[in-house]
Amino acid sequence: MGKKPMTLAEKILAQKVGKEYVEPGELVEVPVDLTLANDITGPLAIKVFESTGINQVFDPEKIALVMDHFTPNKDIKSAEQVRICREFARKHKITHYYEGGSCGIEHALLPELGLVVPGDVVIGADSHTCTYGALGAFATGVGSTDLAGAWLTGKTWFKVPETIKFVYYGTLKPWVTGKDLILYTIGDIGVDGALYKAMEFTGEVIEKLSMSDRFTMCNMAIEAGGKVGLIAPDKKTLAFVKKHSTRKPLVLKPDKKANYVEIREYDVSKIDPVVALPHLPSNVKPVKDLPKIYIDQVVIGSCTNGRLEDLIIAAKILKGKKINPNVRCIIIPATPKIYKEALKKGLIEIFIESGAIISPPTCGPCLGGHMGILAKGEKAVATTNRNFVGRMGHPESEVYLASPAVAAASAVVGYIATPEELGL
Amino acid sequence: MGKKPMTLAEKILAQKVGKEYVEPGELVEVPVDLTLANDITGPLAIKVFESTGINQVFDPEKIALVMDHFTPNKDIKSAEQVRICREFARKHKITHYYEGGSCGIEHALLPELGLVVPGDVVIGADSHTCTYGALGAFATGVGSTDLAGAWLTGKTWFKVPETIKFVYYGTLKPWVTGKDLILYTIGDIGVDGALYKAMEFTGEVIEKLSMSDRFTMCNMAIEAGGKVGLIAPDKKTLAFVKKHSTRKPLVLKPDKKANYVEIREYDVSKIDPVVALPHLPSNVKPVKDLPKIYIDQVVIGSCTNGRLEDLIIAAKILKGKKINPNVRCIIIPATPKIYKEALKKGLIEIFIESGAIISPPTCGPCLGGHMGILAKGEKAVATTNRNFVGRMGHPESEVYLASPAVAAASAVVGYIATPEELGL
Repeated sequence: MGKKPMTLAEKILAQKVGKEYVEPGELVEVPVDLTLANDITGPLAIKVFESTGINQVFDPEKIALVMDHFTPNKDIKSAEQVRICREFARKHKITHYYEGGSCGIEHALLPELGLVVPGDVVIGADSHTCTYGALGAFATGVGSTDLAGAWLTGKTWFKVPETIKFVYYGTLKPWVTGKDLILYTIGDIGVDGALYKAMEFTGEVIEKLSMSDRFTMCNMAIEAGGKVGLIAPDKKTLAFVKKHSTRKPLVLKPDKKANYVEIREYDVSKIDPVVALPHLPSNVKPVKDLPKIYIDQVVIGSCTNGRLEDLIIAAKILKGKKINPNVRCIIIPATPKIYKEALKKGLIEIFIESGAIISPPTCGPCLGGHMGILAKGEKAVATTNRNFVGRMGHPESEVYLASPAVAAASAVVGYIATPEELGL
Repeated sequence: MGKKPMTLAEKILAQKVGKEYVEPGELVEVPVDLTLANDITGPLAIKVFESTGINQVFDPEKIALVMDHFTPNKDIKSAEQVRICREFARKHKITHYYEGGSCGIEHALLPELGLVVPGDVVIGADSHTCTYGALGAFATGVGSTDLAGAWLTGKTWFKVPETIKFVYYGTLKPWVTGKDLILYTIGDIGVDGALYKAMEFTGEVIEKLSMSDRFTMCNMAIEAGGKVGLIAPDKKTLAFVKKHSTRKPLVLKPDKKANYVEIREYDVSKIDPVVALPHLPSNVKPVKDLPKIYIDQVVIGSCTNGRLEDLIIAAKILKGKKINPNVRCIIIPATPKIYKEALKKGLIEIFIESGAIISPPTCGPCLGGHMGILAKGEKAVATTNRNFVGRMGHPESEVYLASPAVAAASAVVGYIATPEELGL
């Protein structure tokens, strides 16, 4: 019995509940290593928490409150949301409360702060909590009520998901990144192609991917309906954890004979730089197959693609070039640390010289929050994760999801393009 | 008759209407050298303009449209406002349309671009248009309807204002800046102390002031009700104009025997760093006389104090120090050029290392637009120009107007303070 092979998701959950194995479909109650809320979902969770009359959180060191969505406060309502979270954090002595100059985009910030390590179970009142799967953590988005429950008990419950294995092999073409791989995958299986499934990303291509690109891929698991996106920890993972965290990682690997509900293999040498056209992340096409689609805005940032590696790619393309005069190019380093590193590497100067706008860390335009909202009829290329109707502004605006490489190249030429259009 | 002495305001208007002299109270119709609107007032002016059925602007090179208030677009409404201005600019081939990466705060941007020179008459649908008086231009805010009228005819009308002369003499104490002088002056005469008057700033102290501090002083003339704030062009003015503009300045000086309705003299050696307490710019007190007023936010920026010189002062104070953990410190370089220069001088790095937030150029929080709105009960020290009830957010929030020096020092200590509190 103890030797029943398991997928990575199953192994993490089994280990957490202290059982030799768990099976898909089984309901498990698991202790959580970290719980997350932001300035939108935090106040809702706080309201539920306070309605219980219990005046004690399970562990003030395992709650992260990150004020990243509508900040710097875009209006009175968002300022009040932050105030509610701040007062809750002070009252309960929450260790990981981030606001203002210490605040970055939650899913870039928490790994950078070393708050998530392999083997963790993390829930967050934000759908892109699945990002941390790149560290081999079982991390998923929950509603604010479930989050409040975990603040009380330190536990949450899951139905153990089935797992789909995605194997990537072959050699990446120039300018094809983790973003292209995950968009291609979502395009292949659809926005419900992994509904309540664990998506396990594996293969020689994943092994070679940077941690940054791995975060990008796991971040978008939810866009295929995935419960979690997971990459088994390897040397790169452990190096990242060693650099950022003092916590001890629990390195679990999926068994070779684990029971996958499906295995999909991709020869990446056939994948070109892609975009997801409006209005679904699954509406994916190679850039080379598109007509000239002129754009009004480019956004390079978000929890999906706002890390230093993303900015380095954008800077390679923007160096010595000018943003097209018909385009607003908004670049958003995801955390203050990334901003600092970009500054020291000269990336910010490259961006400013090119005519880009540098925003402080914020989710901002990704969810139509602020800092670059689209008017009627406007089109944007964005490195964000969703292109639903009205996601970045007016219901008649359009968002095209792409990698930082495609976004930066498009900002220069003024229509959707790969860097090859610039001779790069 | 021709030798009748005139104030600077009278001289500019007389010259523009081609008369030997004009008298206070007289109505004059004058050609305008520049007309300005922004993303708030532009659409209103466009609507009025288009309602006339006349499809031709007087001069597409004398219209500036600066999309600086709610940008990067904070919401769909602001995005639509910008779209209306952009389409108008394209249709009428407006030369000076600024949006996105080329856009800065209008009153910092236009002088930097050399669009205003001494002797000009400028009207802008923004109350702080009086800023350009520092260049010896008759510049004032008008309503959107008057602006639309000027777009049609190239002219506007004024009642020639009476002039109050303000003479500053003595030696400035440490950390006393142009901002302190103008706040002190407004505190002295009140928010209606110069109602529909020209405020002529003069004296040995003004001569020694940087152009940046002169802009700050003229910028706030409107806060005393002034029609214009004026400083006669001198060597510094002409050096500034030579650096920024290819246009020929018309250097006019007030006559010694000009007829001033009032002359006020200030011994600046008696002036300390001040703040204007809520909720009027005239509610001015020396910082040293205040109790400890703890703050939640600091804003360093705006058309009043977002220039390079202001950032240099802030950086002197913030270098090697940390923003108080209870304070969000938002620093807003007023234009992309200022941002670039601050970057090259290492100021941005100092700010980021201190834990400040760097915003792209925008009016943002100054008028409660976005990018740092206050919640109920919150207090902010701001280098902006108005502290009316609810100006930066919630009706129960408070704004304390100050210089960049006081603002930066307060950001570090967490309550309103001068740099001397830090041993500087």
